Amino acid sequence: MSYTNEKVTDLKIAYIGGGSKGWAWGLMSDLAMEDTLSGKVKLYDVNYQAAYQNELIGNRLHDRTDVAGKWEYEAVRTLEDALTGADFVIISILPGSFDEMESDVHLPEKYGVYQSVGDTVGPGGLVRALRTIPIFMDLAQQIREHAPNAWVINYTNPMSLCTRALYATFPEIKAIGCCHEVFGTQKLLASMVEELLGVEDVKRQEIKVNVLGINHFTWIDQASYKGIDLFPLYEQFVDKYYESGFEGSEKGHWMNNHFASAERVKFDLFKRFGLIAAAGDRHLAEFMPNTWYLTNPETVREWKFGLTPVAWRKKNKQALVEKSNQLATGAEPFELKPTGEEGIDIIKALLGLGEFITNVNVPNQGQVREIPNGAVVETNAVLSYGSVRPVLAGELPKPVQNLVMRHVMNQETTLQAALQKNKDLAFQAFVQDPLLSTLKPDEAIKLFDEMLVNTARFLDGWNLKVHTS
Amino acid sequence: MSYTNEKVTDLKIAYIGGGSKGWAWGLMSDLAMEDTLSGKVKLYDVNYQAAYQNELIGNRLHDRTDVAGKWEYEAVRTLEDALTGADFVIISILPGSFDEMESDVHLPEKYGVYQSVGDTVGPGGLVRALRTIPIFMDLAQQIREHAPNAWVINYTNPMSLCTRALYATFPEIKAIGCCHEVFGTQKLLASMVEELLGVEDVKRQEIKVNVLGINHFTWIDQASYKGIDLFPLYEQFVDKYYESGFEGSEKGHWMNNHFASAERVKFDLFKRFGLIAAAGDRHLAEFMPNTWYLTNPETVREWKFGLTPVAWRKKNKQALVEKSNQLATGAEPFELKPTGEEGIDIIKALLGLGEFITNVNVPNQGQVREIPNGAVVETNAVLSYGSVRPVLAGELPKPVQNLVMRHVMNQETTLQAALQKNKDLAFQAFVQDPLLSTLKPDEAIKLFDEMLVNTARFLDGWNLKVHTS
Amino acid sequence: MSYTNEKVTDLKIAYIGGGSKGWAWGLMSDLAMEDTLSGKVKLYDVNYQAAYQNELIGNRLHDRTDVAGKWEYEAVRTLEDALTGADFVIISILPGSFDEMESDVHLPEKYGVYQSVGDTVGPGGLVRALRTIPIFMDLAQQIREHAPNAWVINYTNPMSLCTRALYATFPEIKAIGCCHEVFGTQKLLASMVEELLGVEDVKRQEIKVNVLGINHFTWIDQASYKGIDLFPLYEQFVDKYYESGFEGSEKGHWMNNHFASAERVKFDLFKRFGLIAAAGDRHLAEFMPNTWYLTNPETVREWKFGLTPVAWRKKNKQALVEKSNQLATGAEPFELKPTGEEGIDIIKALLGLGEFITNVNVPNQGQVREIPNGAVVETNAVLSYGSVRPVLAGELPKPVQNLVMRHVMNQETTLQAALQKNKDLAFQAFVQDPLLSTLKPDEAIKLFDEMLVNTARFLDGWNLKVHTS
Amino acid sequence: MSYTNEKVTDLKIAYIGGGSKGWAWGLMSDLAMEDTLSGKVKLYDVNYQAAYQNELIGNRLHDRTDVAGKWEYEAVRTLEDALTGADFVIISILPGSFDEMESDVHLPEKYGVYQSVGDTVGPGGLVRALRTIPIFMDLAQQIREHAPNAWVINYTNPMSLCTRALYATFPEIKAIGCCHEVFGTQKLLASMVEELLGVEDVKRQEIKVNVLGINHFTWIDQASYKGIDLFPLYEQFVDKYYESGFEGSEKGHWMNNHFASAERVKFDLFKRFGLIAAAGDRHLAEFMPNTWYLTNPETVREWKFGLTPVAWRKKNKQALVEKSNQLATGAEPFELKPTGEEGIDIIKALLGLGEFITNVNVPNQGQVREIPNGAVVETNAVLSYGSVRPVLAGELPKPVQNLVMRHVMNQETTLQAALQKNKDLAFQAFVQDPLLSTLKPDEAIKLFDEMLVNTARFLDGWNLKVHTS
Repeated sequence: MSYTNEKVTDLKIAYIGGGSKGWAWGLMSDLAMEDTLSGKVKLYDVNYQAAYQNELIGNRLHDRTDVAGKWEYEAVRTLEDALTGADFVIISILPGSFDEMESDVHLPEKYGVYQSVGDTVGPGGLVRALRTIPIFMDLAQQIREHAPNAWVINYTNPMSLCTRALYATFPEIKAIGCCHEVFGTQKLLASMVEELLGVEDVKRQEIKVNVLGINHFTWIDQASYKGIDLFPLYEQFVDKYYESGFEGSEKGHWMNNHFASAERVKFDLFKRFGLIAAAGDRHLAEFMPNTWYLTNPETVREWKFGLTPVAWRKKNKQALVEKSNQLATGAEPFELKPTGEEGIDIIKALLGLGEFITNVNVPNQGQVREIPNGAVVETNAVLSYGSVRPVLAGELPKPVQNLVMRHVMNQETTLQAALQKNKDLAFQAFVQDPLLSTLKPDEAIKLFDEMLVNTARFLDGWNLKVHTS
Repeated sequence: MSYTNEKVTDLKIAYIGGGSKGWAWGLMSDLAMEDTLSGKVKLYDVNYQAAYQNELIGNRLHDRTDVAGKWEYEAVRTLEDALTGADFVIISILPGSFDEMESDVHLPEKYGVYQSVGDTVGPGGLVRALRTIPIFMDLAQQIREHAPNAWVINYTNPMSLCTRALYATFPEIKAIGCCHEVFGTQKLLASMVEELLGVEDVKRQEIKVNVLGINHFTWIDQASYKGIDLFPLYEQFVDKYYESGFEGSEKGHWMNNHFASAERVKFDLFKRFGLIAAAGDRHLAEFMPNTWYLTNPETVREWKFGLTPVAWRKKNKQALVEKSNQLATGAEPFELKPTGEEGIDIIKALLGLGEFITNVNVPNQGQVREIPNGAVVETNAVLSYGSVRPVLAGELPKPVQNLVMRHVMNQETTLQAALQKNKDLAFQAFVQDPLLSTLKPDEAIKLFDEMLVNTARFLDGWNLKVHTS
Repeated sequence: MSYTNEKVTDLKIAYIGGGSKGWAWGLMSDLAMEDTLSGKVKLYDVNYQAAYQNELIGNRLHDRTDVAGKWEYEAVRTLEDALTGADFVIISILPGSFDEMESDVHLPEKYGVYQSVGDTVGPGGLVRALRTIPIFMDLAQQIREHAPNAWVINYTNPMSLCTRALYATFPEIKAIGCCHEVFGTQKLLASMVEELLGVEDVKRQEIKVNVLGINHFTWIDQASYKGIDLFPLYEQFVDKYYESGFEGSEKGHWMNNHFASAERVKFDLFKRFGLIAAAGDRHLAEFMPNTWYLTNPETVREWKFGLTPVAWRKKNKQALVEKSNQLATGAEPFELKPTGEEGIDIIKALLGLGEFITNVNVPNQGQVREIPNGAVVETNAVLSYGSVRPVLAGELPKPVQNLVMRHVMNQETTLQAALQKNKDLAFQAFVQDPLLSTLKPDEAIKLFDEMLVNTARFLDGWNLKVHTS
Repeated sequence: MSYTNEKVTDLKIAYIGGGSKGWAWGLMSDLAMEDTLSGKVKLYDVNYQAAYQNELIGNRLHDRTDVAGKWEYEAVRTLEDALTGADFVIISILPGSFDEMESDVHLPEKYGVYQSVGDTVGPGGLVRALRTIPIFMDLAQQIREHAPNAWVINYTNPMSLCTRALYATFPEIKAIGCCHEVFGTQKLLASMVEELLGVEDVKRQEIKVNVLGINHFTWIDQASYKGIDLFPLYEQFVDKYYESGFEGSEKGHWMNNHFASAERVKFDLFKRFGLIAAAGDRHLAEFMPNTWYLTNPETVREWKFGLTPVAWRKKNKQALVEKSNQLATGAEPFELKPTGEEGIDIIKALLGLGEFITNVNVPNQGQVREIPNGAVVETNAVLSYGSVRPVLAGELPKPVQNLVMRHVMNQETTLQAALQKNKDLAFQAFVQDPLLSTLKPDEAIKLFDEMLVNTARFLDGWNLKVHTS
């Protein structure tokens, strides 16, 4: 890497994962449109073929005249190769396959437990964490060995536990977890400003928020647009749309879109707890007891958000594979468009090309009061040359803190269980998950046993003997 | 108060409450049998007549030849009178009457929510707290004014929140909350040692335990008898009695006794979490989700513990009133027998007459790691001349910490709600109580509204308007 | 106050102090050049006449065509009048007169103790604090009563203790302490970049620094200019100028200017401790033992910084009084020029007119690890609509932390001494000041007694009886 | 080890060091008089011959009829041999020889710096620490490998840093540092009670104290004898003996005894800071600036305490060697008498043979508020079966905290310097030692350079190049 005249050349990025296509292509697009950076991206995926196709796709961009940032892409066969010499490491993997995810998300339905995403908390999130943590421990060890000074940007879920596992393994790692869910809430507030104040074209970056909590269960306790406090406005807005829901800020209608919602969960949480929950409703609902929003599909419909079936993900993946083939051969041209993600801005800031403030996931060192140190929390941070410094975000009101802490402590238990390969300990977390709050312990055990069997190939060294207590 | 030659004379004790008879008579009995202390007890109760009868009963002891400690008893009409000049203040009140308690305990049954005691957590404990906190705030203010240097010993439930309210109001107060539930667990362990090791006459004080948690949900993570680690022994013991329960350590059989249990809840918690829960099963069960032990009366019977009906308390009170009349007139002689409570030992220790170690409830200052400072926790402490110094009890394992923290934070919320007379805030705690984990939020609101109406005469200044969200 | 279209009108500012002229006129100048703000400034000074002259001077600006921000100035006779309705309160007072300051600074010279400023730490700073703290306690009380929601910006020294006293008296106060010493160090680094890298016109704002410590003894542990780490560069720079000193970044030469220095103290601290001290040498020297830089006037000359005699301040004040007369009558025109201070930027940021990051003095809540919570520390903070959020600045290396903590704890002691009017306690801080490290305790007592006598009119209620131990 | 009927047989103790004789013989004597313990002591010393002579001496006791505790002693040639199978490890070594100690203590006198002991803080204590820490790191590693579950009792100075080094290397170690200095202060208070109250034969254990601080600079903020607060009494006592000193509580007169004092330093600290310093005056004086008590030999004489010359230690050692020969051959009989040390009581308590409370040195986990976690502090602790639990000792008043923290932070710096073999870092601690407060930095450097040369054979891997800045 070499800095001259506000440009960085020869930058080395290791991109881990990317079989999922979307994130990799987005990065390519964003890099292509940025003229202050150039260098090489090494692509590593457990499926080499997937990485290789991305190499082909990425290298096609190099000579296009509409491309400002010139990058070389190379698929590599080992993590070591990818990491050696890297200035940045970007992680965006699918832990396991959609088959394991299908079990995570849908098997609990047998017990009346529904999940809208299933990748963060709830039975699905917890089991996903158990198979993901060892992968991230291995990543951290290899980063320690091959790229100890690199900055690591993680996009994989469960975000908090992935990032936690990196730090637990290599405490000096310079890693941050990045997630766009808060952006979505900023966009919602921007739409609100446009609608209620008649301002045009409000950018999400103009919505200043104080963010605190854990990923996908983050809360905003202060929000402003220029000289205007948005809390009184949000109260009006919630009153107006509480029943009907609000559908302006996301693309598709919630009914036709597995990823959309009408924000009713968010509005309900505001009425009950007084803060703005800053994630999509599909995520928020999973952090609450199943008697609240995810009781059953009818209740979900009333709250107007989508359950994302894994079958859809499988089908969508097929489409992406086909598109990948088209892009790799050049049959379909690669379209450049900004993703709205901040990966490139983050890289630039850390290189000294533009300080900025955004929300990140890093271990708590006091940025959120009354959450244990070391647990991964999400708050704003100042990103500047060589540093990510969280801002002091204060403390959640006790009732919300209670909602959040339950998951924080469950995540700490899950981490320990994964480190120790200890099924009993893992179950002590599982049984405390709020989505299982109507199950008897013995039902929870049965469900847990079945789920673990389905993810067993990732639980090397565990004793999965079925409970018979 | 005057100290000479290892005796203290002229000691002044303010006894607040005592209409409940049992505690007051126990104190009289213990004081009568202790020859190093003498002085005067001022008796204050909202029902002066009850206090006056205790005056008559207490003063009858003075000239008995079998009485070692000579005390004068005087019923007084104001708290100020009771407190002025007091060296010690003992609080043992019933907040409200058994009518309010009947609502606390039994009204939730309409919604399928059962409570075995209803005075600590759960819907009953929370509503009881709301009416008790203002009483304790008033007590603390009067103590600040009239007896700022007195030691205050509280026996009233909800223990944690009563003690918390004292400190919240008068941070320099020298107050401790005392509870005998841990003693019961020590007795269980003593019985175990007798049975499994064939030792005779093991005293509960010989069972050394490290205690940490909150009142009625305290945990033991280290236990020994002389040179013997009791954890492996307890594991055997639990295996032996898990199904049948163990009935040796308490007087009555659980089926015939509203206060007894067969320890099955305690054994189950050990199997699931690896620590010894140190309270009676009736209390422990209330801290867990209602899907565990208090699902319904049948489940309770399987777990072999008693639900204590308030009707029984009312009837029992009648019997005590009659007995009180007999004692006051001398028709029935007052029988001296040790209560097994430690009140007198505590008083002596604080006066310099015998340092000892026991479990107390005081605000956390680090004695339990990872529980917020200020929350009232229960651990061992060294009681010595003029000081109560908690010992560092360490940290609960994360899964148990999660169980405990949920209540700690709910208690902090409840305190704030009581201070602010804020029904919404109180409900934010209520709805998170694990005994309500199968209720929908709207059911919980209805229950809450009804319960508050029944305790309304203690909620001066609150807006109890029914929720209509 | 009213916000519309990115302008704020009707803003109310209370300006407390200002007899010192410089700061008040600077604010007038900055306000006049800012077109997004307008409103009214109420001027309060213990010397009404001084405030009144500022009123005349300020109001002369209103109709000038080169003035963008329109303000009304009004001298008022009471703090209450100044504060009532204020959106912002700016405090810039001289506690006592230059007579007291003369005793603070020069009396210790009798004992061989020299001070270059004498307003922060050292014997002079401590005695100044004792007379200043009651003034700030009174200010805080009046702010609580008359302007509880106002933002308070303090410029008075001793900065840390003035700000600490505000928070100790009114914990919910929204106060920040602002100081330009870090700016000076940024300018030094900018000069360095210009000289060593041949870049032209580097702005101090382009020098990004992580700041941590206490006011006037703040440290930089990370500094960059765009994509360049400045630490290796600073090492070269220090080597080059260690002996000769560097005189480029400040106006006058240190030998002819009581405020200038050649940065040799700063360079020496870097060689010894590895961090960049971020204040003027005259301030830094006072925090170190007197065997280091302030041993005697010869040593001071070797280190090439100025001792600022109070006689000069008195003379300078005369000149300012004359200038004030000229400005008030219009005989001399008021010249508009930017002060380089950030007061206006801070006001704008808090009003939502431009988020920015700068260094502020506020109570520690974790922004500096291992410094006690509540002590006033200096770090960067994000200033945004309605909020000042410190960034987590990390931890000082232990040896520097030791240097800093000695003053932090002395300041805490001084605060307590002022609150309790306790001379013994004040002396327990005094005798631990490093500038007195070569004095015997009995010499220190004599000096302390003499100094207190000279400031006695501000020590109402103290027992100043001379020590005779 | 085997526990039966309140006796432990087959106990294995590793005794490390003991060439110094005194401590080893004391242990033998105490073990011989204790009838509840028996087993084997393995003796390890870098000088095998010294250990072997102790083996001979110890084994002579076995068959004596006046010996209650039967022990086998065996000198071994490796640490591994000593540690393997050990239940307890006792460490009592001399780091280096009296030659190094001579440099530590007396070389600084060239620079006008006097030390009364030179083994804890001051230039001598710091340099001793630098050579001791690697030895303790090695000990900790071997304990981790060969006796990870053993309890480790350290008697070596510098106590805080030796214990700190054990925990820094092996965080799970079960180590405590034990020191009798607090006992001496309890004895002084006992003498005071006897004298002022006319009570006879007061035992030091009857003096209840709250202890907080760091080893040899520990403070008592609460002291009682039965029902009597000792603080008012101590005030009288200090007034009575402030000028003359008090010589009753120690054996020899301070003028003829290098270890005695007349307690004047302790009395002066009480008058100045209000707490009872709980160590011998020779130790206390070394923690204060050299302008206070150790200015020069005349000042020391005025304060009436002894400077302990290393020449005396060398001579005394000769005498002990001769005595050792006599004891080993049986020419001189081994006299049994209680040492007054608590080593045996501690061992018994940890085995479950008698819970008790005493002062220990362990890493801070909150037992002293406002001292950093991890630093080794001295407070009371409850010693019970398998556990050492510090009691919450509270917080030192800020001025005393300032005195203490300076050393705490210097010790943390010294530890880091030793771990990193970093001379610059070590000097950053050295130059901040209060005994050097009148030296210029350049004088301090020269002294430091000379001292390190004299201890160089223990500083393997350091770069000791002389400073030439």
